[in-house]
Order: sequence, then C-alpha cells, then structure tokens
Amino acid sequence: MFEFAVQAQSGRARTASFTTPHGTVQTPMFMPVGTQGTVKGLSPQELSEIGSQIVLANTYHLMLRPGPELVAAHGGLPGFTAYPGPFLTDSGGFQVMSLGHMRRITEQGVTFKSHLDGSSVQLTPERSMEVQEALGADIIMAFDECPPFPAERDYIQASLERTVRWLDRCQAARTREDQALFAIVQGGIHPDLRQQSIDATLPYATPGFAIGGLAVGESKEQMFPAVAFTAERLPANKPRYLMGVGHPEDLVAGIALGVDLFDCVYPTRTGRFGYALTDDGRLNMNSSAPRSQLEPIDATCDCYACRHYTRAYLAHLLRAEEMLAPRMLSLHNLRYLHRLVERAREAVVQGRYGDWAREWGERYFKKAL
Amino acid sequence: MFEFAVQAQSGRARTASFTTPHGTVQTPMFMPVGTQGTVKGLSPQELSEIGSQIVLANTYHLMLRPGPELVAAHGGLPGFTAYPGPFLTDSGGFQVMSLGHMRRITEQGVTFKSHLDGSSVQLTPERSMEVQEALGADIIMAFDECPPFPAERDYIQASLERTVRWLDRCQAARTREDQALFAIVQGGIHPDLRQQSIDATLPYATPGFAIGGLAVGESKEQMFPAVAFTAERLPANKPRYLMGVGHPEDLVAGIALGVDLFDCVYPTRTGRFGYALTDDGRLNMNSSAPRSQLEPIDATCDCYACRHYTRAYLAHLLRAEEMLAPRMLSLHNLRYLHRLVERAREAVVQGRYGDWAREWGERYFKKAL
Ligand SMILES: [Zn+2]
Ligand SMILES: [Zn+2]
Repeated sequence: MFEFAVQAQSGRARTASFTTPHGTVQTPMFMPVGTQGTVKGLSPQELSEIGSQIVLANTYHLMLRPGPELVAAHGGLPGFTAYPGPFLTDSGGFQVMSLGHMRRITEQGVTFKSHLDGSSVQLTPERSMEVQEALGADIIMAFDECPPFPAERDYIQASLERTVRWLDRCQAARTREDQALFAIVQGGIHPDLRQQSIDATLPYATPGFAIGGLAVGESKEQMFPAVAFTAERLPANKPRYLMGVGHPEDLVAGIALGVDLFDCVYPTRTGRFGYALTDDGRLNMNSSAPRSQLEPIDATCDCYACRHYTRAYLAHLLRAEEMLAPRMLSLHNLRYLHRLVERAREAVVQGRYGDWAREWGERYFKKAL
Repeated sequence: MFEFAVQAQSGRARTASFTTPHGTVQTPMFMPVGTQGTVKGLSPQELSEIGSQIVLANTYHLMLRPGPELVAAHGGLPGFTAYPGPFLTDSGGFQVMSLGHMRRITEQGVTFKSHLDGSSVQLTPERSMEVQEALGADIIMAFDECPPFPAERDYIQASLERTVRWLDRCQAARTREDQALFAIVQGGIHPDLRQQSIDATLPYATPGFAIGGLAVGESKEQMFPAVAFTAERLPANKPRYLMGVGHPEDLVAGIALGVDLFDCVYPTRTGRFGYALTDDGRLNMNSSAPRSQLEPIDATCDCYACRHYTRAYLAHLLRAEEMLAPRMLSLHNLRYLHRLVERAREAVVQGRYGDWAREWGERYFKKAL
C-alpha cells in the first residue's frame, strides 16, 4: 500500500502510480477539490466518468460543518460523499490562515474564530490528526504553518522550524495505519530555507512530500525556481505534491520539474464564472462570440458538455443564470485538466515530454517558445 | 401520429399513450418544465433516467432570449437542449400576463415590454405559431388569454370568446403538419362559461385539449369542480392537459377526474428551496432533524440521490449552499412525481384507482379520508 512505482521518466518529468485502500492513482494527476465534501456541482459518478482518481477535501471546512463525528458516522468521506475512490485531506492549516478570524499562532497550535459562527476553535497537530482520522481519507497531510507572501525571512525560518516540530507531533499522535501521512516542505522562495526545511523533513521518511508555501501570491518567476529546487531534492521514490496549483500551464511546467500531484479550485471556480479551458487558451463564454457558435467548446473533448452542447446553448444558459451552465463548465474544465495529465503521461512514456510541453505551450500562448 | 389510445379505465381515471415524432408518451404523465430550455440543474440524460417522457419549454422566455432563430439553427429544441424526446411549448400567453410589463391586450394580440430589457414586443396568435414552429416542439399550444383570479365575470366571458377567435387564427396561421396544436378551454370557475368555452372550442377538433385558466390563485375547492366539469365534457379520445398543476395531491385528484397531462415548476422549485417529496408528505431538509439522519430521503426511491446519499449529507449540502443540493432535490422530486404517475397508471390497469388514491392520500395527509 502507498507503494510509489515510477513507470517512465522523460527529463525530470515522470509517470508513476501508487495504490491506496480505495484505489490506484496514476501520476501525474490533478485532484479536484471538494471543499465541503462535494466537488461543486458534480456527482461522484461524473467525477469517475471524466477520469478523477482522487479527490481533495478540506479539513477546516468539514471540521466546522458538519463536524468530523457525522462524517465518521458515515464510515468516512467515501460513505458521506458517495465518491468511492481515494481521498486526500489537507491539514486545515492553510484555511485557518486564510479564513479564520483573530487567529493566534503559538507553539501549541492555532486558535481562531470560525468564519461560520464566530465560535473559538483550536487546531493543533494532534487535533488535525484526530479530525483527519475521523474523515478517513487515504492520504492525510501534516499540520503546517504556511506563511503569507510576502513575509519576513526570520518569520519564514521560525515557521518552517515549527512546521517540523508539528510534523513530529503529527507522527506521534496518529493512530491509523491505513492512512498515508504526507509531510510538507516550507521555506518560501528562499533556496537556503527550502534546503533547511528539506534537510529537517526528509528524515521522517513519510510516504509522500508536499511542496507547500507556494501559490500564495508570489509571481510565477518566483514560484517555479522554488518548485524546481525543492522537487529535485525530494526522494525520487516518493510522490511530490505541489499544493494549490491548477492552471493548465502550471501543471505542464510543474510536471516538467518532477511534480506528481496537483490540486486547485481553479477549474471549477473559473467554470462557474463562465470560462472554459481549451488547448487554444481560456474561452470566455460570457463574451458575445460564443452566443452564435454552433460548435462545442472543444471538438476533441469527450465530456458530456462537449458531446451534447453547442457554445451557443451554454452561453445562453450562462446569460439566463441557469445552474446547468456552471455544472457543465466545471465538468468540462476538470475533464480538460484530466486529459492534460493523461497526455502528459503519454508524452513521458514516449520519452518526449519536453517537446510535447513546448508544442502545447506554443498553441496555448499562441507564440513560439 | 398523435393517435391517443386509451388502454384502461378505472372510474374516470384512465391510462393511455400517444405517439409524437420524438417518441411515445404514456399518460397520465407529469411534464417537467424547462423554462429557458433546461429543466433547472438537470441534464437530459438524468431526465431520461428518471422517466421523463416529455418536457415543457416556455415560448415567452425563449422568444426573448436566445430568440427563436437560434433554436431553429439547432434544428429546434431537441438539438438546442440535447433532450432527444418530445417537447411541448406553451403559447407565451400566460407569461405575457405574469411577466410582461405595461401590457396592452387588443383583438390583434398583446403588446408588452420585455422583463429582460424593457423593449417593446408584440405577441399575436400568428406570432406565437411562428415562434412555436421555430422552436419545433411536438405539441404546441394555441395562443390564449388567461384572466387573473379573481376577475369580473364579464371580463372572463369576453376573454374566452377572444380565445376562441385566436384559436381560429392559430389554426389558420400554422404551417407545420408534424406538430400537434392543442386548444385551451377557459371560463374560470363558472360552469356556464366553461360550457360556453367548450362548445365553441370542440368543433376545432384539435388532437388535444388543455384545461386553462386554473391554478392561478383560486382555492382547491374552487379549482377541482371546474376541472371535473371540464374534463368530463372533453372528448374521451383526446388527451386532457391541466396546465400549471403539479402538487402530488393535485395529480392524484386530477387523474381521478380524467386528466392525462400535467406540468408545473413545483417539484424543481421546492427542491431548490430544500423540500423533498415523499409518500409521507413534504420533508423539510432545512430543519434540524435530517442533519443527523443516516437514511436516504426515501428508501423506496430509485433516484441517484436516494441510492447514494443520506439525509444528513444532503442537509449538509443545503446548509453549505452547495449546488449539488438543489440538483439532487430537484432530481428526487421529479422522480417522485414520475413514480407517482407510474403507480397511478398501474392502479388504473388494476381497476382500483379510487382505492389506491385514497390509500395514498391517507398516508400523505396522515388522516382517514
Ligand atoms: Zn468538454
Ligand atoms: Zn429519490
């Protein structure tokens, strides 16, 4: 279980698979985000049909509502949500930082006021493990502190050191052997701090490592060197998970740097706002052109929306504020990212990932790369 | 085509079928409403799976947006919406009365300002036929005037006479032979005016007749005698369509009076508001009880929601304002009405419709009937 088997490599890009109690995951893989126990607007059956292999759920949200006890009473997330495949839960740390009010961070953990009802809540490494065990995901994340961007170097350093001490407490506190605990490497965009975090984290030999603290406001020119630096220093025989990243071009670039797993609300959120992802860039379905176009969003896409609907119909649904519009655009966008990683895997197997990525990028950005 | 074949009768209730260019419809049947070319939140595949056999679309809404030309460019509603089965379009008259601003009714037709952009629009019998031919439904409705409730007797009389003259113009104006034009009987809740409307309408020998002008604000005690009076005077060999009615108890009562077709936004609208239809009455999923209930909405229901989700999960989705909640409750409620008419058909075939209806009502209302 959680055995990570690399099948092919092309440059630093690789394709692999790992097995969880609820199924096998092929990497590189994009994980749809089911914040509150549902990928917004989509059914588990639809997720399976479009090639989702693992779904992320948010510990912070589910802890506050409906509470871990109710999810546990359903036998965990698969019983609660009816998605039968593997889940990954985050630690709650990131949302505490972005959504919790009046938060106070101490060595013990984080105290904050719930964004739902203002009640005071404490989240610690031990409590994060307890909640994530109740939620029952196949992969659980160590409770970390993710500093905002920008942050003082001293703060980032103190924070990454605390993150390692919290990882220690997570490992000591957890009791379930059927869940894989992933550690999170911090250090912002500073190579020496990244190195320090890696050196302190690797000895824990967790079955996977996340590259944390990025996609929090820094530029792409700042993010990718940090991804590259971290990814090449993480063990080759463990999955590498770049948290919170999900734009198509960032998947293509991340895979080139040896990243295996991604998650982001981007494809569903941008879909709800009326945007459709395609190889030719992002299509604004709110603009006037699609209103009279009788072709699908993407003639090469096999999603339900592209097999059944014209752009004109979907644009009509959007203007009419019909629920089917965000549902269908979310479905298409997720399918787009799943097809993107499928094509990436194929290119790795063929040993031509770099060429494929450049061709994809030239079409996507409509310029020579 | 449009041949209406009665298969069994039990009291005045009957079960029958009729064939359209896009498929056969078993009656009694409830028609989901796809106001803007989509049954809110549901895909055509889901409609087929839950037993929808014919979908209603609104001429008024589609005429204003996206316009009949765009629907016609898709080959009509099946191509536009991807629902491959039969459609029925209303005449636009009812929505003009309820949604159009500053409307002026003359013998020629109705002039009103669009609720979308305030532009001035005219709808006449001829224009209604032209638009409905472009939309391409299998059943189209004559352009009628539906008086509000209450209305002066003199007004109702003048209105029903005009509705007959408009029916005449509709028949003269239509050009497509593959669409069945249904006439609409008016007359409010006055038996003598109903009789007058029936006498003037029946000679047109349309392939079906609608009972119009009801479910507009009158009490059930006023509505059902008018339904009974009208239904028994309409030809036995033509379908009878009670417009705008869709509460479970009204379907059960209407079928007892010989009604064959119903439509209403009720099941999807009440679902979006968090209510689930069951044999034990309407379940308020917003209340506190369902939040901890680990059983489905209805253990006897075969819809996706009942096969996969607990009440607790659906109640969580509602509280979290997740799109999957209105989607799943709409799906369940429509399936409930489709199962209800399936069971009604079965009871008719068994010659025990009256007994079945009483048993159903005693459980639904929790009292002896
Ligand atoms: Zn698609
Ligand atoms: Zn159901």
